[in-house]
Amino acid sequence: MQRARVWRNLGPLCLAAWSRTHSRAAAARLDLSGIYPPIATPFTAGEEVDHRKLEENLHKYAQMPFKGLVVQGSNGEYPYLTEEEQVEVVRAVRRALPPGKLLMAGSGCESTRATVQLTEKMAAAGADAVLVLTPCFYKGRMDGCALVQHYTKVADCSPVPVVLYNVPANTGLDLPLEAVVHLSQHPNIVGCKDSGGDITRIGLIVHKTQTQDFQVLAGSAGFLMAAYCVGAVGGVCALANVLGRELCELQRLCWLGRWEEARVLQQRLIEPNAAVTRKLGVPALKQAMEWFGFHGGACRSPLQPLTAAETEQLRREFASNGWL
Amino acid sequence: MQRARVWRNLGPLCLAAWSRTHSRAAAARLDLSGIYPPIATPFTAGEEVDHRKLEENLHKYAQMPFKGLVVQGSNGEYPYLTEEEQVEVVRAVRRALPPGKLLMAGSGCESTRATVQLTEKMAAAGADAVLVLTPCFYKGRMDGCALVQHYTKVADCSPVPVVLYNVPANTGLDLPLEAVVHLSQHPNIVGCKDSGGDITRIGLIVHKTQTQDFQVLAGSAGFLMAAYCVGAVGGVCALANVLGRELCELQRLCWLGRWEEARVLQQRLIEPNAAVTRKLGVPALKQAMEWFGFHGGACRSPLQPLTAAETEQLRREFASNGWL
Amino acid sequence: MQRARVWRNLGPLCLAAWSRTHSRAAAARLDLSGIYPPIATPFTAGEEVDHRKLEENLHKYAQMPFKGLVVQGSNGEYPYLTEEEQVEVVRAVRRALPPGKLLMAGSGCESTRATVQLTEKMAAAGADAVLVLTPCFYKGRMDGCALVQHYTKVADCSPVPVVLYNVPANTGLDLPLEAVVHLSQHPNIVGCKDSGGDITRIGLIVHKTQTQDFQVLAGSAGFLMAAYCVGAVGGVCALANVLGRELCELQRLCWLGRWEEARVLQQRLIEPNAAVTRKLGVPALKQAMEWFGFHGGACRSPLQPLTAAETEQLRREFASNGWL
Amino acid sequence: MQRARVWRNLGPLCLAAWSRTHSRAAAARLDLSGIYPPIATPFTAGEEVDHRKLEENLHKYAQMPFKGLVVQGSNGEYPYLTEEEQVEVVRAVRRALPPGKLLMAGSGCESTRATVQLTEKMAAAGADAVLVLTPCFYKGRMDGCALVQHYTKVADCSPVPVVLYNVPANTGLDLPLEAVVHLSQHPNIVGCKDSGGDITRIGLIVHKTQTQDFQVLAGSAGFLMAAYCVGAVGGVCALANVLGRELCELQRLCWLGRWEEARVLQQRLIEPNAAVTRKLGVPALKQAMEWFGFHGGACRSPLQPLTAAETEQLRREFASNGWL
Repeated sequence: MQRARVWRNLGPLCLAAWSRTHSRAAAARLDLSGIYPPIATPFTAGEEVDHRKLEENLHKYAQMPFKGLVVQGSNGEYPYLTEEEQVEVVRAVRRALPPGKLLMAGSGCESTRATVQLTEKMAAAGADAVLVLTPCFYKGRMDGCALVQHYTKVADCSPVPVVLYNVPANTGLDLPLEAVVHLSQHPNIVGCKDSGGDITRIGLIVHKTQTQDFQVLAGSAGFLMAAYCVGAVGGVCALANVLGRELCELQRLCWLGRWEEARVLQQRLIEPNAAVTRKLGVPALKQAMEWFGFHGGACRSPLQPLTAAETEQLRREFASNGWL
Repeated sequence: MQRARVWRNLGPLCLAAWSRTHSRAAAARLDLSGIYPPIATPFTAGEEVDHRKLEENLHKYAQMPFKGLVVQGSNGEYPYLTEEEQVEVVRAVRRALPPGKLLMAGSGCESTRATVQLTEKMAAAGADAVLVLTPCFYKGRMDGCALVQHYTKVADCSPVPVVLYNVPANTGLDLPLEAVVHLSQHPNIVGCKDSGGDITRIGLIVHKTQTQDFQVLAGSAGFLMAAYCVGAVGGVCALANVLGRELCELQRLCWLGRWEEARVLQQRLIEPNAAVTRKLGVPALKQAMEWFGFHGGACRSPLQPLTAAETEQLRREFASNGWL
Repeated sequence: MQRARVWRNLGPLCLAAWSRTHSRAAAARLDLSGIYPPIATPFTAGEEVDHRKLEENLHKYAQMPFKGLVVQGSNGEYPYLTEEEQVEVVRAVRRALPPGKLLMAGSGCESTRATVQLTEKMAAAGADAVLVLTPCFYKGRMDGCALVQHYTKVADCSPVPVVLYNVPANTGLDLPLEAVVHLSQHPNIVGCKDSGGDITRIGLIVHKTQTQDFQVLAGSAGFLMAAYCVGAVGGVCALANVLGRELCELQRLCWLGRWEEARVLQQRLIEPNAAVTRKLGVPALKQAMEWFGFHGGACRSPLQPLTAAETEQLRREFASNGWL
Repeated sequence: MQRARVWRNLGPLCLAAWSRTHSRAAAARLDLSGIYPPIATPFTAGEEVDHRKLEENLHKYAQMPFKGLVVQGSNGEYPYLTEEEQVEVVRAVRRALPPGKLLMAGSGCESTRATVQLTEKMAAAGADAVLVLTPCFYKGRMDGCALVQHYTKVADCSPVPVVLYNVPANTGLDLPLEAVVHLSQHPNIVGCKDSGGDITRIGLIVHKTQTQDFQVLAGSAGFLMAAYCVGAVGGVCALANVLGRELCELQRLCWLGRWEEARVLQQRLIEPNAAVTRKLGVPALKQAMEWFGFHGGACRSPLQPLTAAETEQLRREFASNGWL
């Protein structure tokens, strides 16, 4: 079994403890390939988590050829949930999820100790893997060394495989490529989700981790086909909350090498995707969910509902691409 | 009594409730002018909050002509503390603080509801005012409207006066000037701390809020004299953890109009300040505290200790300006 | 024949004049598909243009299956050449270029009038098309409207087809997608070179201009395969000055749909490409040219030669990918 | 006489040549202190330089207590003028300028050799000093070393004193502070104009060059008072084209230590200044000039005239501060 090289002092005892009870082989068996919606969290009028609506959404998602679901990603408004709410939603998803589907839960906090603790709670609540966001508040000090230490400690202690999560648009921080390559050697780190959209970087991550059975997931539907093209194995895509079947179909076309058909479909997805992510964010995602038969509803404050003009813009982005 | 104008629907009932029990006059009596160290949080070797060392620091700070202390600011590693730890530190500071000194506590969370709740806990723990960081995870949606809603709700519900807190280097977000001006009209918002260092903006905030008894605090020692020059009333300065007397002296010179002397002192403080903030961050602040007789110690992970080269650089920045 | 819609007043007289002497059909016949090196400019020890070395490079490039050459792109240090030198190099390339190869010349200046004049000179010197950089000094005022006006006027007056040139790393400006789409309707604008590397944007440009016979060229070798995948027709790649045959082979594999082989080759090119562009720039490109049998040599000041450490880094990026 | 230390090889022969014919004492006699408008360039309807209108503006400026004029700064649309036009405008200003007023001419080009040549032409045309913009196209390679080499060579060869010119909003590049400090030792570099508005940086430049008789000029009216406060000697302010007397009055109040009055005046100038610079740029500057009795007129393309809404916004920024 290959071990992570230490940059400074990577807590060898902790890693040793890990090795006694886990194996690279076990972690490696976790095949991440496929499409995942990072599910939205419906709220009641009083801004409480609406478990009934959540379950109705989950029931619909269960009919789709997703590889699994991501819970407590950015689109789930996880920074607005208490830890208790976060864990409870994971439990609810676990109960509703058909056998054979993966549950990947966000567990990244600012401090290493809190991340370790939340990771353990997520595993106990039924997560098959955890998706760990880069800590980012002290950006100026979050260099490759600090991030390698952080992720190594989390992976050493996690009962389930760890997926790195890089989303510079929210964090203002890009997980350095060298750190990703280094961390890919850790037996309990099985892949990464990259939402930055830099296709050159994604290709290079695939290239430099090819001996490690390290799996790269595209973090947005806008570059999903290009990511498959350069070697990604799947995608965690906000738009899958709305157009889930279509994204699974795009994946199928890429896997079959039917690139011409894939391209036509991919191109129709770029603008709706931009609308529910970069341009108008979670409120737009939830509005679009309503149009397509899911429960979206309002966001928690301070996220504001769309203005009338924004709603109209959102409708145009879907309609002009033939989705509405 | 003047009321905040609504941008959309600013919860008039909540504001009405506020008005029954508070008054602009009461909030206005809170004079913020002066120097505040945003205190660091000492940890034990096991990364637990070290209350003994904290108290020894507080004992020393009590001898200095500070206006008060800021607790749970960025330099206190507040994102790495649990809520219980955050509140407990505020309680400890309250107990140790001499009468007449202000205690300003950080209470900003990502969601409005969590911020309201933590604000209430901070007030109950003894805070005289709360310093509320801009929520920033969903940067793309945190426009003036969302931030005005957020701060208005928090201020409506807060038992103590609210100070806006803008620190773009950490949040990747600049609280729009128009939002600051609008919020300055709220009877329970008494000022702002601006750490961006844009002196033109600071001058303009002073200018456009001059009819509101709104108080501006410089968020860093590097531009403290310039901020006084354009109308700020004080400063919340990381460097005050290390060179507290000197910053109070700088304030005194500015207040007396002894600008030539002030300039000489200010200039010697720029490099040490940059070293413990923008350049090397909290680990450097804590290292420098050790050199000047305070307890700094290690940070919580993932913040790493300074390398030998960084420590040497830090020493040079203090030494070349005559402080070591 | 389709005409460009006007945003404000797009000089209809000038466009009318253009229409009398040109036709969309003529411009459309210019097929841009293929690989182009944006050639470097060799200098003598005294920093004069070294025409002998230039011709020796051109002789070698003539043996390669390039679609053509780009002259006076960023890698040609065009901002460091006088206008006379710029035009003279174009003339020299024209003389040396085998029949059937395209000569695309940079002609972008800050002012519209200077761009029009240089465009005419480039056409007279033998350019088959011009590549027009976005004007960028007054970034804050270069919105879509200003850029549409600029490019429309240039295209109206140009004797040869115009290719838009977007390179945000140098200009600090991204040509708005809406402006590209609008300009794609102009009969004398046949395509764009996009060096930003945002594959989502490239896919969207292809999508939204698909009725216009508008051709997209990737501006860097790092995302060449992904660009082909989403619909680009070729690439203008600095690395083609060094590994020209390999980039033409990558293009061939993409065109044949041999994506697996393409991916292996693409991945080996990412690091060498980053080294001669984003990381170490033109001095590295010229150094690498020397290693591969071309004349690179020194840059004009203020561009500095590589340090020894940088040269070593450059060598590693090529060697670790099997090129040295 | 003190010499510049070399970073790599700073052309000692050239510097030696300089030393034979110049002296630090001579350069040092050039006192830069005071206010300078960076004059706008009026054009005719056909976009030619309108020398008659220029002279009428100059006649009015001659009545004001300016220290001198800056010609071919950013506000003069210098990147849109040919070299011949640039030099001719300098000649015209020289002829019109009353004795005792300084003429500072922009002479920065991308290449070192072109900058040296234009510097000589500007001196021959009557410039008392040259203002040299940072070269910026190859941003990634314009580190401290390259910029020190560039400025040293220019200063070695210039017949008149050199002023460094840092304007990151246009160039996307910040001249490193260490480079400024190093260059301050050159006998023919007498100061810098800093338009970035970072008051901490300005204070630090003053501090670290205090033994060098190095003069710092604020590059914008928005932070003029704060700049005086931390040790600047004057300002090159776009707004001086419009409110010249008021800026000279602000300078007078600062020099007399009448800070309270200065603050009131400074604060009324921030919004009009932002409007004619950062917010709306040169077209707004020229529009405001018309309102205040000067010839502004249109800009060269691709700079567009203000829209009706922008003109209204501009008027409001002046009117709400009592200037219209």
